[in-house]
Amino acid sequence: MKKILILLCCLLPILTFAQEDEDAFKIREIYDISLTQGDAYETLEHLCTKVGGRLSGSPGAAAAVDYGKAKFETMGFDSVWLQPCMVPHWERGDKEVVKIVASQTIGTQGLNAVALGGTGSSGKVGVAGEVIEVKGIEELKALGAAKVRGKVVFYNRPMDPLQVSTFAAYGGAVDQRVYGPAAAMELGAVATLVRSMTTKLDDVPHSGVTYFEDRSKAIPAVAISTKDAEMLSALLEKEPVRVYVKTDCQWMPDKLSYNVVGEIKGSRFPDEIILVGGHLDSWDLNQGAHDDGAGCTQALDVINTFNKLNIKPQRTLRCVWFMNEENGQEGAKAYANWSNDRGEKHIAAIESDRGGFTPRGFTTEADEKVYKTHIKKAKEWDKLLSPYGIVIKPSGGSGADVTRLKPQMGLLFGLQPDSQRYFDYHHAPNDNFEAVNKRELELGAAAMSSLVYLLDKYGM
Amino acid sequence: MKKILILLCCLLPILTFAQEDEDAFKIREIYDISLTQGDAYETLEHLCTKVGGRLSGSPGAAAAVDYGKAKFETMGFDSVWLQPCMVPHWERGDKEVVKIVASQTIGTQGLNAVALGGTGSSGKVGVAGEVIEVKGIEELKALGAAKVRGKVVFYNRPMDPLQVSTFAAYGGAVDQRVYGPAAAMELGAVATLVRSMTTKLDDVPHSGVTYFEDRSKAIPAVAISTKDAEMLSALLEKEPVRVYVKTDCQWMPDKLSYNVVGEIKGSRFPDEIILVGGHLDSWDLNQGAHDDGAGCTQALDVINTFNKLNIKPQRTLRCVWFMNEENGQEGAKAYANWSNDRGEKHIAAIESDRGGFTPRGFTTEADEKVYKTHIKKAKEWDKLLSPYGIVIKPSGGSGADVTRLKPQMGLLFGLQPDSQRYFDYHHAPNDNFEAVNKRELELGAAAMSSLVYLLDKYGM
Repeated sequence: MKKILILLCCLLPILTFAQEDEDAFKIREIYDISLTQGDAYETLEHLCTKVGGRLSGSPGAAAAVDYGKAKFETMGFDSVWLQPCMVPHWERGDKEVVKIVASQTIGTQGLNAVALGGTGSSGKVGVAGEVIEVKGIEELKALGAAKVRGKVVFYNRPMDPLQVSTFAAYGGAVDQRVYGPAAAMELGAVATLVRSMTTKLDDVPHSGVTYFEDRSKAIPAVAISTKDAEMLSALLEKEPVRVYVKTDCQWMPDKLSYNVVGEIKGSRFPDEIILVGGHLDSWDLNQGAHDDGAGCTQALDVINTFNKLNIKPQRTLRCVWFMNEENGQEGAKAYANWSNDRGEKHIAAIESDRGGFTPRGFTTEADEKVYKTHIKKAKEWDKLLSPYGIVIKPSGGSGADVTRLKPQMGLLFGLQPDSQRYFDYHHAPNDNFEAVNKRELELGAAAMSSLVYLLDKYGM
Repeated sequence: MKKILILLCCLLPILTFAQEDEDAFKIREIYDISLTQGDAYETLEHLCTKVGGRLSGSPGAAAAVDYGKAKFETMGFDSVWLQPCMVPHWERGDKEVVKIVASQTIGTQGLNAVALGGTGSSGKVGVAGEVIEVKGIEELKALGAAKVRGKVVFYNRPMDPLQVSTFAAYGGAVDQRVYGPAAAMELGAVATLVRSMTTKLDDVPHSGVTYFEDRSKAIPAVAISTKDAEMLSALLEKEPVRVYVKTDCQWMPDKLSYNVVGEIKGSRFPDEIILVGGHLDSWDLNQGAHDDGAGCTQALDVINTFNKLNIKPQRTLRCVWFMNEENGQEGAKAYANWSNDRGEKHIAAIESDRGGFTPRGFTTEADEKVYKTHIKKAKEWDKLLSPYGIVIKPSGGSGADVTRLKPQMGLLFGLQPDSQRYFDYHHAPNDNFEAVNKRELELGAAAMSSLVYLLDKYGM
């Protein structure tokens, strides 16, 4: 018995090394497939150039669902279905008009602007008012209603360029866009301008969601380009400035839409689910290439790669293209509710929703009861992934569409690409297919496939 | 005494921690300056858009030297000088004409092509011949002169897409461009086509150097775009193909040119030199933005940052914009010879010549007698640099312009940015200012400044 034990102790490291070699080999194969036979780029091209903008409730979103279902049905899933959800339906209407009116210094001049999602209409004649510039909501509230009433509020706190992660910089500035217009409305402002959420100084305006508790009271709220924000701010140093804003936006009744779901039943542990996904909806003014066509097509490429390598998952593998991440997350809610109701267990879920740039790793989150154990296990895989520049990070969250699965006690991941260029395109008219680099996209897909391979093999 | 020793032992970690805190704070300051008051981007814009292409021996290169000297003189160096070197002078002449002639399938069709640097002239009437496709020089040699004479040799081995580092892929394919045309000439070929050195499938041809031992015998050699290479290869499966090539290139007598050098004398250790640099020359058909305007302007930004933070180097700090990296490295040779003749000691040299993309770390090299000691010391700094995504790598080389300083027994570094997009632009008409992202460039400059700060403080 003792001899057997000694033998086992000697063999164990060898077996472990053999296992590691096998995994290293498989991951190399996964990268080979992604970089030479991946279909993320081609799928993205279709989604961007044939379907285009996919704002929840729009004909584009409906076409994207149709395309998604048809595409999924070619991928060899055991089952493909559409999961219904009621989504908010906001329409931009006619192109926004935003201009400085009769300035003593520069006369009348248009600004590069787009209405924020959720914005109200100005009515056909538009609204005008004197501009007051603030650096944030607290500063505005301190001014009080007497000074704000009838004015156009201009939020102009830049994203902090000192943050190495642009997402951290975004997190420190985006409250102005999300809650600033409603705060201005409460104090009697007639419209709101928000400096675009980007570190880049250019003429490109960046949209995104803004919230009004009572939609019927929503005032016009537009993002202006960073260059125009700088110019307006400089002009305000010299003279009072009046701005005219015309928006044609409106809220329509909620609309029926869908998540697109594909499933391969696990051969050994069908009750343990691994999810890969991104969100299918985008804003209306671009092709939603980085946000988040990239994530959708990378997630689906996991299936392509498994097919090509003839990997039959032991655990149930689901790919989900979520609807309505941008302005409500109704798809994510519908999925989580449905899954919870069925008593499902997602042992892991991976979302890609930070752009199709060179991947650096995965951020993570989990219920605190299980986080330490899970992360310890996942960190073991760093040695297999780090040759590809991929590291599992013990923090940083997952993704808006999968975070609701946390109560199922799995480990949730967010693909983390290089962040420097993301906010050059985010919610802006230039987030189009051309902005995505094929290899960068494919390396992200390969990282996701590799992680799914390990999760499927070893569980969580 | 024992008590003092114990006290010292207790204090040492505290002192070390205090030191580390001070360094961490200083590096944070360096990043703050680079990201908000850096001038790499502005200098690059000037170099790209006001000076433009800067091929050795050209008027552009001369203008770049003038601009460099004038710019250096505004930077507060103790001394600025031009260091002479004789450089090769090759001229492209009239635009190349490369076309498939009278194909049964597609008729006559132009190809996206550029002459390789060092290429000969076809004469005014051009040359034509039947195309033979090979995957490399060995395959060509195996064919022998009888099968090659009078033909147009087409090298079509792609860069290996499976390499995660595109530089590794480049290294595995570029012999076709550098030595392939001369090998074809030896066997009697009338011209050479080379598949462009890029992993991207597009219509952009990529130039670069090719070597003929006897320049007077140089045959026309052009790079064609990857899409055209694929198309031509497919056509060759169907039918014999003739290609016509006309080049107007010529060699002129060597020309006097210069490295631009700026120096700040070290206050405590003036004989220990730290060099930062890039190369000023580029190809003629682009603005040389990533290759290597980015490296030049990042290197100079180290001086800008030190000025803004009032850091007076203890060791002598030199910034060098090297001439003629692309086709001869005569600037690098002149600098190394001059420095060796004076018995100088470069304790470190850092070159940036892999594009202005998000930096990931520094590769290194040194004489093997000192490498282990040096790298151990440098690796200590990982903990200060890794919060910015920067790691010192114990391999990977430095840069073509600084590698000749190895006999001086210092540690040589190459800035290592993300490599995925570099070969989308390398030596191609699209390597222009717009291709560089401001933050990515600045982060590289900050990484270089941080490393120089540590090298200056602690020596090597």
